[in-house]
Amino acid sequence: MMLADQPPAAALVFQTLLAHGPLSRAEVGRRTGLSPGAVTKVATPLLADGWIAELGRPAVERAHGRPATLISVRAQRARFFGVKITADELIGVVTDLAAQPLATARAAFASRDVGTVVLAIARLIERLRSEVGALEEGVVHSVGVTISGDVDGQNGTVQYSPFLNWRRVPLAQLVETATGIPTVIENDVRALTVAEQWFGAGAGLSSFALVTVGAGIGCGLSIGGRVVAGAHGVSGEIGHLPVGGSNRVCTCGNTGCVEAVASTHAITEQARQAGGNPTLTMDEAVGLAHAGDPAVRAVFSRAGHAMGLALASVANLIGPERIVISGEGVASYALYEDQIRQTFGAQAFGAAADCDLVVRPLPFEEWARGGAAVAAQHLFAPTK
Amino acid sequence: MMLADQPPAAALVFQTLLAHGPLSRAEVGRRTGLSPGAVTKVATPLLADGWIAELGRPAVERAHGRPATLISVRAQRARFFGVKITADELIGVVTDLAAQPLATARAAFASRDVGTVVLAIARLIERLRSEVGALEEGVVHSVGVTISGDVDGQNGTVQYSPFLNWRRVPLAQLVETATGIPTVIENDVRALTVAEQWFGAGAGLSSFALVTVGAGIGCGLSIGGRVVAGAHGVSGEIGHLPVGGSNRVCTCGNTGCVEAVASTHAITEQARQAGGNPTLTMDEAVGLAHAGDPAVRAVFSRAGHAMGLALASVANLIGPERIVISGEGVASYALYEDQIRQTFGAQAFGAAADCDLVVRPLPFEEWARGGAAVAAQHLFAPTK
Ligand SMILES: [Zn+2]
Ligand SMILES: [Zn+2]
Repeated sequence: MMLADQPPAAALVFQTLLAHGPLSRAEVGRRTGLSPGAVTKVATPLLADGWIAELGRPAVERAHGRPATLISVRAQRARFFGVKITADELIGVVTDLAAQPLATARAAFASRDVGTVVLAIARLIERLRSEVGALEEGVVHSVGVTISGDVDGQNGTVQYSPFLNWRRVPLAQLVETATGIPTVIENDVRALTVAEQWFGAGAGLSSFALVTVGAGIGCGLSIGGRVVAGAHGVSGEIGHLPVGGSNRVCTCGNTGCVEAVASTHAITEQARQAGGNPTLTMDEAVGLAHAGDPAVRAVFSRAGHAMGLALASVANLIGPERIVISGEGVASYALYEDQIRQTFGAQAFGAAADCDLVVRPLPFEEWARGGAAVAAQHLFAPTK
Repeated sequence: MMLADQPPAAALVFQTLLAHGPLSRAEVGRRTGLSPGAVTKVATPLLADGWIAELGRPAVERAHGRPATLISVRAQRARFFGVKITADELIGVVTDLAAQPLATARAAFASRDVGTVVLAIARLIERLRSEVGALEEGVVHSVGVTISGDVDGQNGTVQYSPFLNWRRVPLAQLVETATGIPTVIENDVRALTVAEQWFGAGAGLSSFALVTVGAGIGCGLSIGGRVVAGAHGVSGEIGHLPVGGSNRVCTCGNTGCVEAVASTHAITEQARQAGGNPTLTMDEAVGLAHAGDPAVRAVFSRAGHAMGLALASVANLIGPERIVISGEGVASYALYEDQIRQTFGAQAFGAAADCDLVVRPLPFEEWARGGAAVAAQHLFAPTK
């Protein structure tokens, strides 16, 4: 039995139990709006097939009548592998049904050609599999692979990955063939947004944006509990918002893009020019800025200004409850946080400035967990 | 009986009938995913209370068994008044349950003080009421008033209306008291977006943006069938996207805002400066541009460039299926359409450029109808 074959009410009950832990049937009814009869009807096949379980002893005594039995998701009923592909490394995680990590692992790959990377993914998954021990019989499992760039999750195709220089790679099918496990793929920032919405800084919010700063600048938008996908597959391209203020040419060919000023690559390049040192690294630039070098500090300040304008654009258009800022670039966030907040406060329109800006470092293992969360999501409502 | 007291399935059945016209119960079941039994259970009280009706003769003969009876919304069961407030005029409409206009009227007001405007609204509604004749007994009716600015629909308060210079006006309560009819209020662009989503250029789309160009530049966003409200009440403030390229100061105090370059007011002012004629009107500026005046043409071209960047920002962040461009400014749209499309095409990221850009003139009566649509929406799911 796949959960996706169950009626919509079953997914509702199941997801309520996933998000809010052991609950009595009555409490599930209150939270879902389903009648007690409907909850019982939906829960019975889920119990029979091991997706949920009744807890041995009730945690709450009721004033009258017999104590309410609590029901809970059986986390061991399914296992998800999540893999994040960076430019030179794989980060993998295996989680249970509640997306709790059971083991993590990393693996470098020698070459970026598709065959090499797919084989490395298969080996990484084999390693994770052996680390968590044999599967209980009948356990459902699937793989979620995430990668930056233009990813068509519906068709399982990486349309374009700038870092790996891949075009039109049917990655889901290739990984599925290599591992023998059903596989879905997703853009890495969107996958991380799914995980944050479910278990992270976005849980319980009506809307939030997750902005990741690094080699690229990306954004996942969650509105009303759903991650915005974009009608044409593009959304959250905050790095290519035209905030102006610079003549630097972006990878997309335009000038004025946020990414052309505020990505780690752009900051490094501008710091090199500012200091006349063509081999300066990002770490050295951060060091110079902390030491008070005015030219390098100005580079971070311009980056912060561009980021502040970009975040204000998100706030003015969408009005999210919170904006979470993460990614590698967050390590140097202290250098431009003041400028970001100042520009954001000035450009955010009216009450949009009340949007909560929070910084949350998310290691690559969390990004890999995003892949597992996407795989789990497909278990409830497969889209391919 | 209010529809909002009915179970969610009733709203689903009712809205399916509203959107897709007379249908058999079986077809309603197919479209809603409800069982035949559930459709009948939900439809019975709606029939009894006159919200829906069985049509006299079936339009479709079935191959076997008795012909399927069609059910349909009884449009006369409710009436909605919609009022759009501009800086100096009210535009009113009265519609039936399906938001079809039965009569429209306009009324100027002599002063912008709250009491004068509220009284003018009450008189306009009285006039519309008498034009469509006596109400059938028991007919539900309500009023939806829309106005530009920061409107808190939940509390029924106009937080700030720049054109009327109103702050914290409890408009819903005031109109309700003056008319004796339940009243809701909404930001005018959002209300127009609700109407377009329901009956206009957004019907059936997974997502769309409605951009209105005039004295201000606004935007309504519809994603997954819902108009984005913003967690802090602000959303769709496309006019204050910081696209740069100008030192003109916006009403919000910043430079670089789209509105500071591309609103009708901004275009007029820039054309006055360009031609050294401090009394030039917008109509005259349009005339000069059509006649080939290079300085005035450059003003429209810069406005088009800023608009193109703003629309690309919407496409890059949200990826809507379509962007509808409307508002008074659309009258001169031919003067900068080429520039808008060229800039949009260059700045939209990848497949985001596939977003359909359409121009749709919407007279103020359509904006008033937006108020009626919001009132109707509250009938199904009141939020206050
Ligand atoms: Zn760019
Ligand atoms: Zn502004």
